[in-house]
Amino acid sequence: MTDLECQIAFLAEADKLNTVLRRNYVVSGGRRENSAEHSWHVSLAALILSEHCKQKIDLCRVLRMLLIHDLVEIDAGDTFVYDQAENETKVEREKKAADRIFGVLPARQGVGLRAIWDEFEAAKSPEAKFAYAVDRFVAVLHNAKTAGRGWTENHISAEQVLTVNSPIAEASEKLWEQVRKFVADARAQEIL
Amino acid sequence: MTDLECQIAFLAEADKLNTVLRRNYVVSGGRRENSAEHSWHVSLAALILSEHCKQKIDLCRVLRMLLIHDLVEIDAGDTFVYDQAENETKVEREKKAADRIFGVLPARQGVGLRAIWDEFEAAKSPEAKFAYAVDRFVAVLHNAKTAGRGWTENHISAEQVLTVNSPIAEASEKLWEQVRKFVADARAQEIL
Repeated sequence: MTDLECQIAFLAEADKLNTVLRRNYVVSGGRRENSAEHSWHVSLAALILSEHCKQKIDLCRVLRMLLIHDLVEIDAGDTFVYDQAENETKVEREKKAADRIFGVLPARQGVGLRAIWDEFEAAKSPEAKFAYAVDRFVAVLHNAKTAGRGWTENHISAEQVLTVNSPIAEASEKLWEQVRKFVADARAQEIL
Repeated sequence: MTDLECQIAFLAEADKLNTVLRRNYVVSGGRRENSAEHSWHVSLAALILSEHCKQKIDLCRVLRMLLIHDLVEIDAGDTFVYDQAENETKVEREKKAADRIFGVLPARQGVGLRAIWDEFEAAKSPEAKFAYAVDRFVAVLHNAKTAGRGWTENHISAEQVLTVNSPIAEASEKLWEQVRKFVADARAQEIL
């Protein structure tokens, strides 16, 4: 296969991400969000919210990360951030998926994107921390705009939301403060 | 409203893009693609295919363009590239939509993104030409992978596909050559 043929096979494979359903609802509330729509919305959110990042970041690297961060879900499924049992097997399932999916690309390109995905998963670089923070922030935002439907259906408490999302503070105090506001509002409305 | 409140309102508004249906089908073929999923898939495609661009480009600018390029469809709907009547009113409808939607953002940010959208629409800069080429390329790819479902349901001919997509050649001969291959295959299978 030529490089372009491999790239086309990869793009066709990647499109399956629109068949993976998340626990969250779309903001309009009528149905659950799929991971392709989410990947767009979180990338757009990174573009819009980057000024709130504490550290200087390479936005292009953040966008690359967010565009590919969920591709592993094609094989591994969406792992709900609040589900402890699912999270125990997450790393292994997703690494296997990454091997296969990035392996569809021409080798040099697959290795490069895999390194970006590994960086996201390691959550150590300023770009990975910010990408992770925005990924968490939009999940809270979708809940805040849909009367906490993703939370209530899965019996999530305010304490769980605050604990799971606390790494947002490492990337952006502003976004973390907003998450605490969303949680306080949800508590006042007895959603959480 | 604070800047962050405006940005949250914009992101909630932008999420409506997942309610806009395109004429194309998702690669798995079961349903039509929405414009949010498409915005992700075309951004990913730009990331993967940028090496085939004739000119040196700023990929980050291309990604910004593609992440926002279809937001106007929230108000203006998806304009089918092969529909002449729809295309006669497209510019006016979409400019009005851009005024409203980018107007939700803090002014300095709205002006900046509107300029990027205007650049995409003008299709003159190397980045805008490549973004447009990839936008067209993925539409052909989705048809090639779904037995031309978006084409046949809308009675599109091979000549129309070649004419409408010919600007791809300005950005990438490689991608244009591949489009001609897809069309030749579809002809051989009597899809076009």
